[in-house]
Amino acid sequence: MTQFGKLKGEMREIHAEAVRLTLEDTSISAKDIDAMYVGTWTPDLFLNQLFPAPMLADSLGLNNIPVSRVEDACATGSVAFRQAAMAVMSGLHRLVLVTGVEVMTQRPTRECVKTIAYASDRLWEQPFGITFPSSYALLASRHMHKYGTTPEQLAAVSVKNHRYSAKNPKAQYGEVTLEQVLSSKMVSWPLRLLDCCPISDGAAALVIARAEEAKKYTDTPVYVLGSGQARASLSLHDRPSLTSIPSTKQAAETAYRMAGVEAGDVDVAEVHDCFTIAEILAVEDLGFFKKGEGGKAVEEGSTEIGGKIPVNVSGGLLGKGHPIGATGVAQMVEIFEQLRGESGSRQVPGAEIGLTHNVGGTGGVVTVHIFSVKGG
Amino acid sequence: MTQFGKLKGEMREIHAEAVRLTLEDTSISAKDIDAMYVGTWTPDLFLNQLFPAPMLADSLGLNNIPVSRVEDACATGSVAFRQAAMAVMSGLHRLVLVTGVEVMTQRPTRECVKTIAYASDRLWEQPFGITFPSSYALLASRHMHKYGTTPEQLAAVSVKNHRYSAKNPKAQYGEVTLEQVLSSKMVSWPLRLLDCCPISDGAAALVIARAEEAKKYTDTPVYVLGSGQARASLSLHDRPSLTSIPSTKQAAETAYRMAGVEAGDVDVAEVHDCFTIAEILAVEDLGFFKKGEGGKAVEEGSTEIGGKIPVNVSGGLLGKGHPIGATGVAQMVEIFEQLRGESGSRQVPGAEIGLTHNVGGTGGVVTVHIFSVKGG
Repeated sequence: MTQFGKLKGEMREIHAEAVRLTLEDTSISAKDIDAMYVGTWTPDLFLNQLFPAPMLADSLGLNNIPVSRVEDACATGSVAFRQAAMAVMSGLHRLVLVTGVEVMTQRPTRECVKTIAYASDRLWEQPFGITFPSSYALLASRHMHKYGTTPEQLAAVSVKNHRYSAKNPKAQYGEVTLEQVLSSKMVSWPLRLLDCCPISDGAAALVIARAEEAKKYTDTPVYVLGSGQARASLSLHDRPSLTSIPSTKQAAETAYRMAGVEAGDVDVAEVHDCFTIAEILAVEDLGFFKKGEGGKAVEEGSTEIGGKIPVNVSGGLLGKGHPIGATGVAQMVEIFEQLRGESGSRQVPGAEIGLTHNVGGTGGVVTVHIFSVKGG
Repeated sequence: MTQFGKLKGEMREIHAEAVRLTLEDTSISAKDIDAMYVGTWTPDLFLNQLFPAPMLADSLGLNNIPVSRVEDACATGSVAFRQAAMAVMSGLHRLVLVTGVEVMTQRPTRECVKTIAYASDRLWEQPFGITFPSSYALLASRHMHKYGTTPEQLAAVSVKNHRYSAKNPKAQYGEVTLEQVLSSKMVSWPLRLLDCCPISDGAAALVIARAEEAKKYTDTPVYVLGSGQARASLSLHDRPSLTSIPSTKQAAETAYRMAGVEAGDVDVAEVHDCFTIAEILAVEDLGFFKKGEGGKAVEEGSTEIGGKIPVNVSGGLLGKGHPIGATGVAQMVEIFEQLRGESGSRQVPGAEIGLTHNVGGTGGVVTVHIFSVKGG
C-alpha cells in the first residue's frame, strides 16, 4: 500500500505506486498479470473520471487483459478482492491483480461529506439531510441506550487506533489522548470529530493466484481460507434492530464456515472502524465479544496487542485513514504483513489466522475474509 | 428487458420490472437467487445515488445475499454478466442474477453528453473538450480516408437498425429514411444526429446457473459457449491505428477459441453501434467482413435478415436505445430470444449461434460473448 493521507500526484500515479510496491515483493512482472479488478468508489464525483479501469491499466504496462471496476461503497476494495478471487477460482484467470484506490482530498471536506451521503437512499434518506456521521450516531445512541455504552468507551476505540497508527509509517495520523477525543468538536451526537475517520487519499494492491501455484511467485504466500459477503437494507429504518449489523453476522458466519474456524481462533483482525461505534458493533457481530460488551472490551484493553483479540493494529480507518476504495484492500495488506511477521513495532506475536471486515454504508454490503499463512 | 426510452418511474422501479419479467420466464423466485451483479454506469452523476446494489436489491425481496455493482463505461452490463458467470464457475454461487440499468433522461441531454465525456481521460482528453461523438468522428473520418467509406454507408447502418427497431416493441425509436439521416443535424463531422444513439432509460436482467442445472429452471435455456474481454488504451492517441478497435479483435479471438466456433458460424449478432461507424468497425473486427469492407457490406444488405450475418436486428443502440448500464445485458436478452425463436417479425430463421459485442468508451474495455441453445 501507499502512504495514506493528503497526497500529491494524480490518481494513476498513486495507484501505480501501490502496484509497484506489491509486484516488487514477488517474482511477478506486470506482463504476467492476466486480469485486473479495481476497487474505486467514486472517481466520477471526486475527479470527473469515470471508466477508471483502463485508464489505471494504461499506466501499469499491462497486457490487453480484462480490467473491471467494482463499486460497493466503503466495501468496494474487498468486493473487488472477492471478484478477483472468484476469477481465479473460475479457471478463467491464473494471476489476478486487485487494487483499491481513492483520491478524495482534492475536494473540500464539506463537499466530500455530501458526496459520501450519496451512498444513502436518494428517496428516503438524502432529502432529510442525513450524512454518514449522523447514521452512525443513530447506531451509537441506540447502543448507549440499550447497553450502557459510554462516550469514554467510544473514545477508547479512537485512542487505541491512533496509538497504533503512530507505529504505522504509512498512516495518516499519530497519537491522540482520551481528553483530545472527548473535547474534539461535536459532529453528530454522540460522535465527535475524533470519533470519525478522516478524508484520505491512497491505494493498495494484492496479487491473487491459485493456492497450489502461489509458491512460484513468493516464498511466503498468504492463503485465503474463507470469504463471506452479505447485504442488509440500504437504509437503517428498514432494519429490525440498530444495535447490530446483520450483514456482518451473516458474512462472518459464511467466512468462518468456509474457513473451518471460529471467532476464537482469530489472532488478529482489521475491522471497519469508520466511526468508533462501528468497531464496537464489529467486535460484537464478529463474535469476539458478547453483544453489548464491545465498549467495555475495548476500554479494558481486550482488543490491544496482548489482549484477547488485537483489533486494528494498523491504526484502522480512524488512524491510518480511509481512502474509500483502497480501504478493503489495505486491510488485507495489513493482515498479509501481520501473518508474515513483518509488522515491526505493531506485530501481533505468533499471529497465524487473520480476519478482515469491510462495511459498505451502514452495512448494505459487508465482507469478511479469513487468511492464514498455512493452507497451501 | 423493460421498454427503452424516456421512462417514468424511479431507477429501482425500472430495475425491478426487468427482474420481474425475467423471473416470470422461469420457475425461479427471488428467494432462490444467491448473488446479484448490477451493471450501472453512473447513477452517481445521473441521480446522486451511489451504492446502488443494496438499494436495488431491497426492492426485489432478495435474501441477504452478496450484491455488487460493476462499472466499465458502456461495457458495464456485459462485464457484470461475465462477473456473474465467473461467480457460478467458481462454485461459490449457483443461481446468480445479473442486471443492467441506467436512468439518464432526468438530466438534460447537454449535461448527459458532458457526463459521458467523463469516460475519457481527465488529463489528456477532457481539457481539450472531446466528447464521444467527436472521438467516434475521428474513427469515422480515418476509416473514410483509408477505405473510402462514405456518409451514405454510415447512414445505411442507421436506416437498417431503425427499420428493425420499428419491429421491436421495446425500442425507443421507429423507422428513419436515408434522407432523414443524411439531412439530420451535424454533430461532429461526419457524424450527424441520426448517426448517434439516443439518451435512454431502461433495464435488463438475466439469470445464470450451471449448464447442468439450467433445465431445472426453464425448458429452453441458452448456453454460454464463450466469453472474451480485453482492454485497449483509454485514449485514441495511444493507439497504433484508428481503423480498428484492437480490444474487439482480442475479445473476439478469446471468445471464438473458448466456444470452438469461427466468425462464419455466427447466425445472429448484436454489436455495439453507439455510432454508425462503431457498427462498421465491429463487423470488420469481429471477422464478419474484411477490414475496410464493412461499410459496403451494410450498404449491400449483408447485415440484414437473409444476408450473410444479420446484425442488430433488435434495432441496436441506435434504434432500440442505449441506457448505458443496461445495454450489454439487453444485447444478451435479444440473442437469448433469437436463439429460442421468440423474436417475432424480426426473428432470424434457424439461428443457432449468437454473438454479443459490447464496447466501453472507444474500446478501453470490450467484451464478446457467444451463445447457443445447444451446449448443455
